[in-house]
Amino acid sequence: MKKFKAGILGATGAVGQKFVRLLADHPWFEISALGASERSAGKSYREAVNWIEAVEIPAHVAGQTVKDCSPEAMAGVDFVFSGLDAAVAGDIEKSFATAGIPVVTNARVYRREPHVPLLVPEVNPDHVMQIHKQNFHPDGKGFIVTNPNCVCVPLTLSMKPLADAFGIESVVVVSMQAISGAGYPGVPSLDITSNVMPYISGEEEKIMWEPLKVMGMLNDDGTVTNADFGIHSSAFRVPVVEGHLLSVIVKLKKQGVSEEEAHQAFRNWKNPLAGLELPSSPVEPVKLMDDPRYPQPRLHSGRENGMQVSVGRLRKAGLFDFAYTALGHNTIRGAAGGAVLNAELLVKKGLIT
Amino acid sequence: MKKFKAGILGATGAVGQKFVRLLADHPWFEISALGASERSAGKSYREAVNWIEAVEIPAHVAGQTVKDCSPEAMAGVDFVFSGLDAAVAGDIEKSFATAGIPVVTNARVYRREPHVPLLVPEVNPDHVMQIHKQNFHPDGKGFIVTNPNCVCVPLTLSMKPLADAFGIESVVVVSMQAISGAGYPGVPSLDITSNVMPYISGEEEKIMWEPLKVMGMLNDDGTVTNADFGIHSSAFRVPVVEGHLLSVIVKLKKQGVSEEEAHQAFRNWKNPLAGLELPSSPVEPVKLMDDPRYPQPRLHSGRENGMQVSVGRLRKAGLFDFAYTALGHNTIRGAAGGAVLNAELLVKKGLIT
Amino acid sequence: MKKFKAGILGATGAVGQKFVRLLADHPWFEISALGASERSAGKSYREAVNWIEAVEIPAHVAGQTVKDCSPEAMAGVDFVFSGLDAAVAGDIEKSFATAGIPVVTNARVYRREPHVPLLVPEVNPDHVMQIHKQNFHPDGKGFIVTNPNCVCVPLTLSMKPLADAFGIESVVVVSMQAISGAGYPGVPSLDITSNVMPYISGEEEKIMWEPLKVMGMLNDDGTVTNADFGIHSSAFRVPVVEGHLLSVIVKLKKQGVSEEEAHQAFRNWKNPLAGLELPSSPVEPVKLMDDPRYPQPRLHSGRENGMQVSVGRLRKAGLFDFAYTALGHNTIRGAAGGAVLNAELLVKKGLIT
Amino acid sequence: MKKFKAGILGATGAVGQKFVRLLADHPWFEISALGASERSAGKSYREAVNWIEAVEIPAHVAGQTVKDCSPEAMAGVDFVFSGLDAAVAGDIEKSFATAGIPVVTNARVYRREPHVPLLVPEVNPDHVMQIHKQNFHPDGKGFIVTNPNCVCVPLTLSMKPLADAFGIESVVVVSMQAISGAGYPGVPSLDITSNVMPYISGEEEKIMWEPLKVMGMLNDDGTVTNADFGIHSSAFRVPVVEGHLLSVIVKLKKQGVSEEEAHQAFRNWKNPLAGLELPSSPVEPVKLMDDPRYPQPRLHSGRENGMQVSVGRLRKAGLFDFAYTALGHNTIRGAAGGAVLNAELLVKKGLIT
Repeated sequence: MKKFKAGILGATGAVGQKFVRLLADHPWFEISALGASERSAGKSYREAVNWIEAVEIPAHVAGQTVKDCSPEAMAGVDFVFSGLDAAVAGDIEKSFATAGIPVVTNARVYRREPHVPLLVPEVNPDHVMQIHKQNFHPDGKGFIVTNPNCVCVPLTLSMKPLADAFGIESVVVVSMQAISGAGYPGVPSLDITSNVMPYISGEEEKIMWEPLKVMGMLNDDGTVTNADFGIHSSAFRVPVVEGHLLSVIVKLKKQGVSEEEAHQAFRNWKNPLAGLELPSSPVEPVKLMDDPRYPQPRLHSGRENGMQVSVGRLRKAGLFDFAYTALGHNTIRGAAGGAVLNAELLVKKGLIT
Repeated sequence: MKKFKAGILGATGAVGQKFVRLLADHPWFEISALGASERSAGKSYREAVNWIEAVEIPAHVAGQTVKDCSPEAMAGVDFVFSGLDAAVAGDIEKSFATAGIPVVTNARVYRREPHVPLLVPEVNPDHVMQIHKQNFHPDGKGFIVTNPNCVCVPLTLSMKPLADAFGIESVVVVSMQAISGAGYPGVPSLDITSNVMPYISGEEEKIMWEPLKVMGMLNDDGTVTNADFGIHSSAFRVPVVEGHLLSVIVKLKKQGVSEEEAHQAFRNWKNPLAGLELPSSPVEPVKLMDDPRYPQPRLHSGRENGMQVSVGRLRKAGLFDFAYTALGHNTIRGAAGGAVLNAELLVKKGLIT
Repeated sequence: MKKFKAGILGATGAVGQKFVRLLADHPWFEISALGASERSAGKSYREAVNWIEAVEIPAHVAGQTVKDCSPEAMAGVDFVFSGLDAAVAGDIEKSFATAGIPVVTNARVYRREPHVPLLVPEVNPDHVMQIHKQNFHPDGKGFIVTNPNCVCVPLTLSMKPLADAFGIESVVVVSMQAISGAGYPGVPSLDITSNVMPYISGEEEKIMWEPLKVMGMLNDDGTVTNADFGIHSSAFRVPVVEGHLLSVIVKLKKQGVSEEEAHQAFRNWKNPLAGLELPSSPVEPVKLMDDPRYPQPRLHSGRENGMQVSVGRLRKAGLFDFAYTALGHNTIRGAAGGAVLNAELLVKKGLIT
Repeated sequence: MKKFKAGILGATGAVGQKFVRLLADHPWFEISALGASERSAGKSYREAVNWIEAVEIPAHVAGQTVKDCSPEAMAGVDFVFSGLDAAVAGDIEKSFATAGIPVVTNARVYRREPHVPLLVPEVNPDHVMQIHKQNFHPDGKGFIVTNPNCVCVPLTLSMKPLADAFGIESVVVVSMQAISGAGYPGVPSLDITSNVMPYISGEEEKIMWEPLKVMGMLNDDGTVTNADFGIHSSAFRVPVVEGHLLSVIVKLKKQGVSEEEAHQAFRNWKNPLAGLELPSSPVEPVKLMDDPRYPQPRLHSGRENGMQVSVGRLRKAGLFDFAYTALGHNTIRGAAGGAVLNAELLVKKGLIT
């Protein structure tokens, strides 16, 4: 099988580095162009990047010349991944879509656009069809697909079995988020050593609307009618390198659900990607753990190559119906890895060609 | 003024050390007897203790001989503080009360007893009167007063202004608790370095009933009718040395309270201890902070000698009414310091003589 | 190729778990018996172990029944790895050797025995021949091979290129050691959060003699004449999960060596295991890094599956000759992984059959 | 006694904040002018500063208006403390000295100047006399006094008893430095969480010459002849908030010194500031501790208000003569607190008037 040529926008940033790492040995995709800011363009990737991953720069990527983030400079790619900062992502991503190049982005800029999918493939795979209503490019070849915020991914994945079985009435989520979520240099060590920061600018707003779109209903006109459950979010930064841990409390639409029924809902839930054989698709996207000490960010966020969301301590909560703990790898499942899985689904659906 | 002679039960443990530190220069109390286990009894305090405080062992305490935790061995004390483990506290504390020696304890054993005050002096000072219904000792000289769990203290103190102004319908609290709460050796470093532990054995149960007693109503017969609001608790351990941080969401009894009114409730709230001039009483027991980045455990848990509870990010929460962050120093305000303040109130009320 | 049947002594401990992880998919070895204390014997491994690794318990191991650590209970193994505590390792390991079962151990008990190899395969591979002079078992089938302390491994590996080229006159090593080196529960979090512990009981003594044996000369009688360079060691515990970082200062036997020559010594050094195709043998056992910010424990200790030692900041030091920083994965290269490589060498040499 | 009017240059930075904290209740000095960059000038201190201290901004300082860092804007001060960045300190400090205003600075710019004291008052108090040879101002009223780098202070203080008793031949120091030494935002949390950074730009150079000047001999012409011992420095950043921990190995000029004699040297050493009653002068500037687990940054760096240097594990070292561990509070003793003590000595000597 011939590999698709993938470009990476923002290749020297923290998310871009994760794309490089995840794509280095990808069976379907090859990194054919690395785009970054003017400061980096023209240098080799090795020279341009302040590499912060715990593995070496893949040898065949290290020597590639970094290019400008423009469709012209990166001509020849079949599609691009974007790890761009929101400040610059809007124009650049649009220029690629307009040039007929699909954009699979982790940036937040287009997440609210009516015809742009906010995709978590195991939760709302049908939303990929929204792209047919986008009109960046006359023949529809260029489009934009987004993945949600790093908390929204484990939140929606962990709610999905309950939502399918019983419906969600409302949810409270308190997130304890890893420092890697803020990129590099990101959080100053004086702010977080032996400390918790009770505020992450702009984060709670995202957590309070994105799940409604992800778990919303696709309409015939390519728009999505948002889900109608209530959400409260309080977001904290904790001294953890990788893995966002969520304390979740849900009220179900169905009344009187027992603890055993809730556990069954997780065990019986079927992964809609099963059988598609997407390379990055975890066998168990949502794993229910029995040990009350689990999941823990350091031990479990890397499970199934960082693509599995772990759920633990699922129990009755007096006020609401159920409480549980959920964990997702923020820079893989919640960012670059989620985008790679999105691209794999697009390929499988014949939307990237 | 002649100082009261205070004994310390469990003087070599983590809570006991904090008592030693807080009482070293106390204007009303002097440390006249140090009680610990058989292993320590007979040694000097300096030899017996694995001192973990960041100040030196007070010179006049270091040389004292550690005694058995019995009324006989510690004869001559006017009252005792107890920092004993729950496993042994029951019998020992009872033996002191029965011997006519008041016990001001941080241990949890007697917290549920109908006539034992579970005291947070700024929240339920009237509950001290419960001791008159205790019958450990024929003439009522010996009694037991408890302080609640280290999360319950900042939780009830931070809810009190809202409770007084609007009533509490229900509350959700997610606690991010410091490692010092587990004592020494306590939490293994492999469990908590770059990690969060999603479970603290027995903790959530305490957080879900203690506030109901603390905020309950004193009856004429010396019992307390618990408050009736709903509570959900999820407790996490985070890599922080001192300071339990709480994410709190409350539903008020009164409907339609505005953000400004909620803020006013904090600003207008009167400290019932004001004017009593208790040495450990903070000027502002509950401080509302405006900076959204505050409070933080490392920066703010030591305010007012660790006796102030800080509240921040008080804001409307869609589902409930209000969300806020609260912080309390777990080993001072939430443990030894709270007990010292209890004792000061007992002295002021003429109950320790 | 038929796999060798390996037993693991102390299989539920921290080192034992690492053996389980490293051997789960080993091409030459299969885990055929798990030995632990009486408390665990008879349970399934899943029940007996408090699993602290960041990957799942290998499925085919989880269900195995844990046995007593005796040659009878573990009959059928071709050899055993030992991750036993020193307190019990002496008798148990001897019983296996005496029973004709080779023991490849991480425990320190027999390291000083005159005919027991203290093996770092890239440094002193010839020392394996010492086993022929052991007399645990009449026909020599049972023997004991040890690997050194977790600091000694990166220290000797990083000195080896310099030793080979110029000779070592003396060395000062200050080690900043990860918490995982103390096992589980190990270091209390209150001792190490935002802190450094300046003392590790018994550690410096090991660091000051083991390198002399490892880098010593094998005699015809199967003893080793220790190397004669001077060593000073100061050992510190730092809040790092994995990876011991060493600050090393060496005085060479040869005078006037230039910085360029020292760098060349590393680049020109030949791995004596090259060509043997041992499964756990890293391509580059000692990697010299140019970036002055490298190596770092979190980023680099896992390189080459944790088997590579990284060296950085190799530079002239006024007083001595050269200073450099060395890093080794303490629980892999410095413990279980080192032992696995030892066993692989023994197989290759025909000593485990 | 009338207080001296002190200005603070760089008052909003990390060192400046420490000056504000230390001077808030100083018995001899009052903060009469706060200088900062153009961006801050004109604002109240409360508005201008991102306050990172664990106590509140002193009430009487919070409302002061921040000024430009010029002698004109800050007219009326008796002298200034400088916490300026080296990048701007040179010109600004010179402008004050030239205007006849003494400058007591923590910045490194003038440390190498032949007539500028590099002062650690307990080590080289006589060096204050160097200022008489400075010629910033015609009548000598304006001058500059510097304190050394945050490692040099505990290093020289801890060597002083040995130097006085036996002479120093050479010293190796490996420093494990706290994150607060890099200011704010300073070290990115991704660089230091569960990690050690093996390189601090420019640090080792300072550590390798500053002690030679501090421990040098004052000449009649106001210059200093540097001490002639050899120094090697390797500097590491560790995840510790406050307190630089040093692993020190020294070779003495006198041969054959016993461990007991070395201990006696510490115990017999006389603090040259004793009797001067300087407010910030610790009773024991250098404290020798017996417990091998001491000193530790978190427990001991705050001793004597952060002005005491702790020494532990003083022991024979084979290669050299002695090894020990030293600890100093980097932002107090090693920075702002050291400068305050310098100013107190200058006042006592009648040099600030």
